Amino acid sequence: MTEFIPPGTRWFDLPSPFPMKRGGELHGARVAYETWGTLNAARDNAVLIVTGLSPDAHAASNEANPEPGWWEAMLGPGKPIDTNRWFVICANSLGSCKGSTGPASINPLTGALYRLDFPDLSVEDGADAAAHLVRGLGLDRIACLIGNSMGGMTALAFLLRHPGLAQHHINISGAAKALPFSIAIRSLQREAIRLDPNWNHGQYDDAHYPESGMRMARKLGVITYRSALEWDGRFGRVRLDSDRADEDPFGLEFEVESYLEGHARRFVRRFDPNCYLYLSRSMDWFDIGEYCATRQNGEADTRAGLASIRIGKALAIGVHTDILFPLQQQEEIAEGLRAGGAEATFLPLPSPQGHDAFLVDIARFGPAVEGFLNTL
Amino acid sequence: MTEFIPPGTRWFDLPSPFPMKRGGELHGARVAYETWGTLNAARDNAVLIVTGLSPDAHAASNEANPEPGWWEAMLGPGKPIDTNRWFVICANSLGSCKGSTGPASINPLTGALYRLDFPDLSVEDGADAAAHLVRGLGLDRIACLIGNSMGGMTALAFLLRHPGLAQHHINISGAAKALPFSIAIRSLQREAIRLDPNWNHGQYDDAHYPESGMRMARKLGVITYRSALEWDGRFGRVRLDSDRADEDPFGLEFEVESYLEGHARRFVRRFDPNCYLYLSRSMDWFDIGEYCATRQNGEADTRAGLASIRIGKALAIGVHTDILFPLQQQEEIAEGLRAGGAEATFLPLPSPQGHDAFLVDIARFGPAVEGFLNTL
Repeated sequence: MTEFIPPGTRWFDLPSPFPMKRGGELHGARVAYETWGTLNAARDNAVLIVTGLSPDAHAASNEANPEPGWWEAMLGPGKPIDTNRWFVICANSLGSCKGSTGPASINPLTGALYRLDFPDLSVEDGADAAAHLVRGLGLDRIACLIGNSMGGMTALAFLLRHPGLAQHHINISGAAKALPFSIAIRSLQREAIRLDPNWNHGQYDDAHYPESGMRMARKLGVITYRSALEWDGRFGRVRLDSDRADEDPFGLEFEVESYLEGHARRFVRRFDPNCYLYLSRSMDWFDIGEYCATRQNGEADTRAGLASIRIGKALAIGVHTDILFPLQQQEEIAEGLRAGGAEATFLPLPSPQGHDAFLVDIARFGPAVEGFLNTL
Repeated sequence: MTEFIPPGTRWFDLPSPFPMKRGGELHGARVAYETWGTLNAARDNAVLIVTGLSPDAHAASNEANPEPGWWEAMLGPGKPIDTNRWFVICANSLGSCKGSTGPASINPLTGALYRLDFPDLSVEDGADAAAHLVRGLGLDRIACLIGNSMGGMTALAFLLRHPGLAQHHINISGAAKALPFSIAIRSLQREAIRLDPNWNHGQYDDAHYPESGMRMARKLGVITYRSALEWDGRFGRVRLDSDRADEDPFGLEFEVESYLEGHARRFVRRFDPNCYLYLSRSMDWFDIGEYCATRQNGEADTRAGLASIRIGKALAIGVHTDILFPLQQQEEIAEGLRAGGAEATFLPLPSPQGHDAFLVDIARFGPAVEGFLNTL
């Protein structure tokens, strides 16, 4: 299987062995990252971005790779995360197939791909890897840790497990724990991949690739990443130009179906299925409340977990149309961090684009992020 | 393939040939139905129920079949739809596999199962079949037409195409047209079935049955029939007793996953996959605005379609947690019917159970339905 690593990627070698939260360890593992801007003499202008499930470390164009990145409008000179002021690092998640070590990497102990021999992956492992990267770049402390989506979970784990390493924090469409609706969605995505005969318990190759399963998983993802409200306005009941009913009686007919198909086609051969399974499951497992002995209604105490984090200023942003990481989860983060002493703000935005709004609604997210960074 | 017909089902023979809205016709087709209560001498106490995608005609226990039905708490002597007063008919949808003619029935012209030779099925065909049933039972008019979910679409088509045949109307979690989010969900459910190699373009049998595809489709259905809010309280992050991780590293771990699996298992061999595809697609096609020449933003004019319906009193009920037939669609129905002269009420209910609330939240839906019927 191929990894999908953007040109210009840099690597940081993790300590070897690198112990994993749920057991097992990695040997010769590394974290892929990119940087923008310049570290100042005081070494106090670093910002670290940790990402959602699928992005690589190429958040924006830079000298090493002039291609636009996945957060191009947010990051650069004069942009909301202004690289004239900030030295920005973006880390590819541990377990990904975009440069950091994951199930699609070679296990140096066997010379073969890890596949399902990769140890259980937790959000916390990604947080620990990112913390090693920060220290490895010679930084005692970063000014701000920014986490989006799954990265919002990674960021909370980072703050809790590495106190003092980040001064301030922006949590975007993140969550302190996985709730059952999102667990159900992700469980179904994983089932779609596992049911594809070509998945073959992780033993696929390019010629026998679980394309149908990945397509289903991606389509279900896109459905939950956007919102019904956005689609009403964007697609309505518009039909495709060509009537393909003759070729395939249950084929694509509406524009919204074609949109999903396009998204799926652009994704399926660009992300490793085993990596997808590992990262997806890591989110289900995440619960910041695990870090406290106290219980709340028989479950781990989320608020106590959040309140045990020590941080200066924090901003938790969410949108009311997010069905995957619903708004009350960002409110919970702000309240929990505040209970721990942070100067924490909850900022709900009226974006119609759902969970993925932070990628596209820069008109709203840009000023929110910029405004917070300007207070630091 | 087997049809799944409850004992005590009665049949009404449709006119033969029975023309279908999008072309083609059925020969020797029939509608399965059940009844409760007694038609009075004035013949003015009949209520017809048209259903969602999967229910059969056995809405409640009766003499012919004492087993509880799918709306047992709603229908019976002294219940919200009080069979001491009303003569209640429930029709199984045309195209279903629960007694009415559909893709799993034998085509009398060939002696073989219809499968994909069944003509295109529209919601309107189900409405026409239900109207024939009403007239066939010797009724010039029913007092009230009740439609749930897909049945809410069927009911609107019935009212528009058969003016005067129903006096009053209750529309429960219904819609005047399919919106792109629900089209996307249904399209993905159909794709899951079609991708299952055992579907085999509709040529499956009990030994080679698209079980994985049906399981995926049902799980996705259940996710969209209920709500995140309900699941937060019901499942939280509770894990299954047995840790099955050793057997299957990506197997079931959380209670919510087990709940979905249970629903899927109870469904997959009890509903015909081709019937599922036909009924699902019929909902995507439905748009009451098609019946008007006027256009609204380039699309069919939903409001004008609704306003061309002539009805006495109407009640449109919905719940705020419904993501499949969202609340604004029931509001749209009430407003449109009111514009057509009906005494129409929109009743939003605070049920946490999502789209399926009408099946389970009888504490809220019962009084709403009973109160309306008491005004007739």
